Amino acid sequence: MPKYVYKFSEGNASMRNLLGGKGANLAEMTGLGLPVPRGFIVTTEACTRYYEDKESIAPEIADEIFTMLADFEKTVGKTFGDPKNPLLVSVRSGSRASMPGMMDTILNLGLNDVVVEGLAELTENKRFAYDSYRRFIAMFSDVVMEVPKSSFEDELDAVKASRGVKLDTDLDAEAMKEVVERYKALYLDVKGHSFPQDPREQLIESIIAVFRSWNNERAIIYRRMNDIPGSWGTAVNVQEMVYGNMGDTSGTGVAFTRNPSTGESKLYGEFLINAQGEDVVAGIRTPQTIDQLQEVMPDVYKQFNDIAHKLEAHYRDMQDMEFTIERGKLFMLQTRNGKRTAAAAMKIAVDLVNEGMINKEEALLKIDPKQLDALLHPTFEPKALKQAKPIARGLPASPGAAFGRVYFDANEATRASERGEKVILVRLETSPEDIQGMNVAQGILTGRGGMTSHAAVVARGMGKCCVSGCSELNIQEKNKYFVTADGTKYLEGDDISLDGTTGYVYSGQVPTMEATLSGDFATIMAWADEFRTLKIRTNADTVRDAAKAVELGAEGIGLCRTEHMFFEPDRIFAFRQMIVAKEEKARRAALEKILPMQRQDFIGLFEVMRGMPVTIRLLDPPLHEFLPQEDNEIKELADALNLSAKELTEIIRSLHEINPMMGHRGCRLAVTYPEIAEMQTRAIIEAAVAVNNNGMSVIPEIMIPLTCDAAELKYVKSLIVETADTILRETGAKLTYKVGTMIEIPRAALTADEIARDADFFSFGTNDLTQMTYGLSRDDAGKILDTYYSKKIFESDPTARLDLVGVGKLMQIATDLGRQARPDIKLGICGEHGGDPSSIAFCHQLGFDYVSCSPFRVPIARLAAAQSAINSK
Amino acid sequence: MPKYVYKFSEGNASMRNLLGGKGANLAEMTGLGLPVPRGFIVTTEACTRYYEDKESIAPEIADEIFTMLADFEKTVGKTFGDPKNPLLVSVRSGSRASMPGMMDTILNLGLNDVVVEGLAELTENKRFAYDSYRRFIAMFSDVVMEVPKSSFEDELDAVKASRGVKLDTDLDAEAMKEVVERYKALYLDVKGHSFPQDPREQLIESIIAVFRSWNNERAIIYRRMNDIPGSWGTAVNVQEMVYGNMGDTSGTGVAFTRNPSTGESKLYGEFLINAQGEDVVAGIRTPQTIDQLQEVMPDVYKQFNDIAHKLEAHYRDMQDMEFTIERGKLFMLQTRNGKRTAAAAMKIAVDLVNEGMINKEEALLKIDPKQLDALLHPTFEPKALKQAKPIARGLPASPGAAFGRVYFDANEATRASERGEKVILVRLETSPEDIQGMNVAQGILTGRGGMTSHAAVVARGMGKCCVSGCSELNIQEKNKYFVTADGTKYLEGDDISLDGTTGYVYSGQVPTMEATLSGDFATIMAWADEFRTLKIRTNADTVRDAAKAVELGAEGIGLCRTEHMFFEPDRIFAFRQMIVAKEEKARRAALEKILPMQRQDFIGLFEVMRGMPVTIRLLDPPLHEFLPQEDNEIKELADALNLSAKELTEIIRSLHEINPMMGHRGCRLAVTYPEIAEMQTRAIIEAAVAVNNNGMSVIPEIMIPLTCDAAELKYVKSLIVETADTILRETGAKLTYKVGTMIEIPRAALTADEIARDADFFSFGTNDLTQMTYGLSRDDAGKILDTYYSKKIFESDPTARLDLVGVGKLMQIATDLGRQARPDIKLGICGEHGGDPSSIAFCHQLGFDYVSCSPFRVPIARLAAAQSAINSK
Repeated sequence: MPKYVYKFSEGNASMRNLLGGKGANLAEMTGLGLPVPRGFIVTTEACTRYYEDKESIAPEIADEIFTMLADFEKTVGKTFGDPKNPLLVSVRSGSRASMPGMMDTILNLGLNDVVVEGLAELTENKRFAYDSYRRFIAMFSDVVMEVPKSSFEDELDAVKASRGVKLDTDLDAEAMKEVVERYKALYLDVKGHSFPQDPREQLIESIIAVFRSWNNERAIIYRRMNDIPGSWGTAVNVQEMVYGNMGDTSGTGVAFTRNPSTGESKLYGEFLINAQGEDVVAGIRTPQTIDQLQEVMPDVYKQFNDIAHKLEAHYRDMQDMEFTIERGKLFMLQTRNGKRTAAAAMKIAVDLVNEGMINKEEALLKIDPKQLDALLHPTFEPKALKQAKPIARGLPASPGAAFGRVYFDANEATRASERGEKVILVRLETSPEDIQGMNVAQGILTGRGGMTSHAAVVARGMGKCCVSGCSELNIQEKNKYFVTADGTKYLEGDDISLDGTTGYVYSGQVPTMEATLSGDFATIMAWADEFRTLKIRTNADTVRDAAKAVELGAEGIGLCRTEHMFFEPDRIFAFRQMIVAKEEKARRAALEKILPMQRQDFIGLFEVMRGMPVTIRLLDPPLHEFLPQEDNEIKELADALNLSAKELTEIIRSLHEINPMMGHRGCRLAVTYPEIAEMQTRAIIEAAVAVNNNGMSVIPEIMIPLTCDAAELKYVKSLIVETADTILRETGAKLTYKVGTMIEIPRAALTADEIARDADFFSFGTNDLTQMTYGLSRDDAGKILDTYYSKKIFESDPTARLDLVGVGKLMQIATDLGRQARPDIKLGICGEHGGDPSSIAFCHQLGFDYVSCSPFRVPIARLAAAQSAINSK
Repeated sequence: MPKYVYKFSEGNASMRNLLGGKGANLAEMTGLGLPVPRGFIVTTEACTRYYEDKESIAPEIADEIFTMLADFEKTVGKTFGDPKNPLLVSVRSGSRASMPGMMDTILNLGLNDVVVEGLAELTENKRFAYDSYRRFIAMFSDVVMEVPKSSFEDELDAVKASRGVKLDTDLDAEAMKEVVERYKALYLDVKGHSFPQDPREQLIESIIAVFRSWNNERAIIYRRMNDIPGSWGTAVNVQEMVYGNMGDTSGTGVAFTRNPSTGESKLYGEFLINAQGEDVVAGIRTPQTIDQLQEVMPDVYKQFNDIAHKLEAHYRDMQDMEFTIERGKLFMLQTRNGKRTAAAAMKIAVDLVNEGMINKEEALLKIDPKQLDALLHPTFEPKALKQAKPIARGLPASPGAAFGRVYFDANEATRASERGEKVILVRLETSPEDIQGMNVAQGILTGRGGMTSHAAVVARGMGKCCVSGCSELNIQEKNKYFVTADGTKYLEGDDISLDGTTGYVYSGQVPTMEATLSGDFATIMAWADEFRTLKIRTNADTVRDAAKAVELGAEGIGLCRTEHMFFEPDRIFAFRQMIVAKEEKARRAALEKILPMQRQDFIGLFEVMRGMPVTIRLLDPPLHEFLPQEDNEIKELADALNLSAKELTEIIRSLHEINPMMGHRGCRLAVTYPEIAEMQTRAIIEAAVAVNNNGMSVIPEIMIPLTCDAAELKYVKSLIVETADTILRETGAKLTYKVGTMIEIPRAALTADEIARDADFFSFGTNDLTQMTYGLSRDDAGKILDTYYSKKIFESDPTARLDLVGVGKLMQIATDLGRQARPDIKLGICGEHGGDPSSIAFCHQLGFDYVSCSPFRVPIARLAAAQSAINSK
């Protein structure tokens, strides 16, 4: 049988998984000889066992807790329920990962009608004793018994009103006693039985409540946002109470060893005299800065300062500490590596290396790559943000902050932008036709679609803020308004603000601050480049995106989606002509018009990439995506094509597909319309020859999308090779080029040995691969995901994060088979996951050559790749 | 280096893969000492090499052919091009599998302007010599040089006209010489060079032409229809010519050792005096029956009869033989196992066992399971079929023959049927709403959709003839007509006939014959049951289907699709109420109405299955499939629901999905609307308890569709178990039931170990699994498949036949992982592939417990399962 309960003295910091972060650090501090109130820890395994046992505490675990309690009473020399010498404890959650404020805490446990009197005598402070009791009753009732906190506040307010006072501190002992009576009466009224007087019962119920709080709604949401598995569970820390509210020689506070906003190397924090922790949080009294403690209690300050330095040196990282001073004696209640802003993270990491405390590898591992987003995108001014009014929340699809006037139509948005307005484009969902409007917008808000919807992908590519899938808004595109959940209507031209990092939508203009990159950022990136082995490429379709990516450190283009190029106003028409043409000849004529523009696209990309590898994917989406949908647009196109609107509508209808994602797209287009692939190949080869004639040495990589069968790849490859070789033969130019394929269909992964025979490289298209592997379309998943979250079936959007169990297994199979058939095959990933740190770690493990991600994710990928390399040493 | 050319005397019947069927049998007959004209074979490997070498004959192969030729000339004692003693040969294709008439033949090769004169002298028959030469020129020009045959026929007709004769046989030697001159002039005119005079050139070109003919269009189509891989290639047989057209002591014929239509054990065939093989085929003269040969040439007949018996005994099967008599001497030109009707196949197999020639296992292996279709479904009267006019060809989606009046709307079809009309339902594609119309129709014809489209699947389930995906018809449902490729218009009420076995659509009424099952069929089925280890279940949703399946030998229901049950007119309304309900309460109220009907459904099924296992799948399709699409229907429903048509339209729109196949369906419905799964579970459990109370012992198997994740399965299973156990507890009834899942999503296969922990059984849903694995929607595949066939990327519809390479690998993975986690897990297949012999063999290999198929496929599956068991011994 595993051991479910540990004394602080039995643990240490390395036991975080078992004891939770708080418990492990309390144990560590105990081991270091620091002043920590004594206590014990019920493990995370007890929590998972609790859920396995259908939310009940197994008898052997209860036994172990009470055995420990008896031992603990002996050690402390106090006893539960003994009015002469009562043991009072706090019960706090503490999971493996820090989840601040997400779970519940109970203080002053052990008090009852008898003990409270004893405590009053012992402390010679009746008010304190009853104040502690009423706090305990309220906390226990709220957290353990689900009696709403506000009911207790109402009672407290009633007593204050009856005595004509405003502050809790103005209530005397008798008043507090009345509060206790009222609380108990309320409890009896709501629960139908008296407030439990047995401290052992209080304890077990509180431990259960902490376990239960692991699955409360805010904990679940927090975990989903932070990729914390639900299976981890939380530990429970039971600790002797110490009191910061025992008069002016007592107090409580929080401090960081360095400034968590700026990283400055100086003790930073605040404290309150004569208060408990919750008073600091409540914010009723204004705390003093930690510097002021030096004046108030110089000895305590000195002791604390020494401990702070000791802890930082011990943990080799900036510490976030909680402490209580009870009648002049300092107690450490918590230490942990402190959360910090991205800028602070950079500075602290660099400083710690310069101070010789850690080496570069350690420094790199200390920075959460996802934090870099905040350095690369505008953010709201913190003060303004505090006052901003959130009106809805969607998915944080592309980071950054923006404000502007609402427009519901890409063309209207473009016109407004041309008039000089700042614009937020609001759509139910975006399609490639909206590109221009997205481009001019400050930010994009959509009602449907997930983290990998069109809007999200394109916005991330543009480095533009986007909130997607904001289903609580009722968006009426045609009627040009949206309505919030509370019924407020926003019309075209109204101001809103978007936070793409959190998913919040705000009313009005919330001022933003531009991103700035510090020297520390450059230092960290340089260190990352020293250690990583994965190359970092970017997904870029335009010269602007590519240039941005190069600036941020990209070493090539891993995915150029050529389809976006066809939406440029000057070529969409020719392209539509191509699509509706009935004969190959007419299609070729239309493609002939596009060829020079497409060639110019590639020349631009090759030039900006200065000889770095550029992977260009042949046309991928179903052709109907390029055709107009609105009546007036259809009419316009029909006129230009000498067709009736009816005929054109019929053609558009004939292109309709029931499941377009699994339909006529990808290399299936190249098979049915070889002339498209030929034109694109020609454009690529001619562009490469042209720039190479100007002294560059481009080796273009032509990528075939949506391969599902080796024979299909062989055919399309032969088209490409024949076209390319004919051009090279005819012009006498010399050029090396490569032909490879996306692996984005399960069958391609399963038959990767056959596929590899005709592929110089594989690029894993994990967006589609994930959808096909799950049989779940990201465009339709929105409707079910909320239910899947609330029923704890999924912890996060499976299309947003690389699923190592299923999709990862396919990637492993494909990697193994591909290398079997072609040991030197080049492997990369170009799905959205290419910019996700956990996916990057997996790609590193698989031994990929590169990951490719949107330009603004390049720094994140560089850091994540370095971390993967360091971790796998 | 492999050997590419074999003498007949170097081969035998076991070398079929290398020498082709014809060549291997010629070699075998040579070995048996039978009178076979001498010859040699260029192997199938030479053919595949030809394609590897970009359609050219490698020098070493040409060398080997000419070395063999020199040796052959020595053996035969005749020489190519020697007018005194010319070697003349036939060149015939011969692939591993018989592909009658699919490839090309050249006779009389070796003739030229000089040799023809020598032949005239040698045979003392100038007319014969020139007739042979002109035949050779025409064949060679057509087959090798692609000069159209009809041009030669025109020349022949001109000569006949100029001489005032009607029959070829009326032309004399001079006239034939003129024909030769005209043919040569025509050749020169078309090709720009003279007809080749060098027999060695003639030979090599002819061999190449046979290789090329392997990939002519009709060969490709034949292979696709018969599942013959394109990679096999054809061998080429070069054989000394013998002549049946050398006067009245010569002749040629074809015969079977038993009657191929009835199986009767009696020589069956026909011959022509003074003729070559092609004359028999041309059908200008009426042949005599083989019996009459006894009168005309009694010695030859006796010799042939002896040989026939010898061959049948040697091959232990009915033989199909070709022979030629040259001046009284019999030559065997071919023998092979004869094609036969399904009825004949049964009788011959049973007779051969009774005659002691073969054992039961061998008998079972001799029958092609697919042939059984013909015994189970109506067929056209053969005579009537010969005169029928095909107007289009679609996919042979569900076997059988039918005629009736065309209706384009399920309701119209139903009304017409009620008036007593025989009806053919013609739709662009069918949906569940058409069920009633499909039910009353004689046959179903659709313009879109493949072998696994809704129409195809449902029709097969009903045992009803269906031609699907007939894209050459322009079907105008609303306007109630269709137009054929040649512009003929068919209106509502016009008569057409369908052959679901071939895919042909005919104009007018083609009379049909009902299916009858012989005693031989029962014998064969009983033998099959002795040997097979796989259980055979059926996919059945109705009592009628289930009863039919039991009659045909089904041992359980492997898939009951509950969705079809909801389309019954008396419940679709309640179900639609459920779908559009906004609150769980309203949904539950609507479901409450459906419960008793659903329970009655299951009682019916359980009763007809008499205690055999019944697997019931929870509701699977997206809910919007159940909602009305037409304005008037929407109005009707809206009125009944107290909604405006606009509101209802909005609800229907909100249920619209972009990729419904990967959307809100399957167990995702059970997660979002648990009340549906609960109602269905209740209906199943209550039904099982009810029938068991009447003395049955049903163990229902509840199947969860579309699982992609273990947690999802766990949740839905818990719903089912809680509902079921509550009922059992409350009623005090005892019942064993099982809960399992479909494996139809790649991720379910990849994580089958986790999935198996909560599944009593896996049922592979290979329809969806194939589509997801390929990323190819069967509903949309039609548009690309023709191109994929013509470009030889796919040889057949990947969704119609189990893909062992990709999908099979997933099935293997799932089987292995599932058994790891749960060694006794029950495994079955319920996709359409469950009735396909090659898929059944694969399921047998994987050690499945059962396959499940549509009722009319049960006998096929029984036989195929027996064959798998016998083959794997």
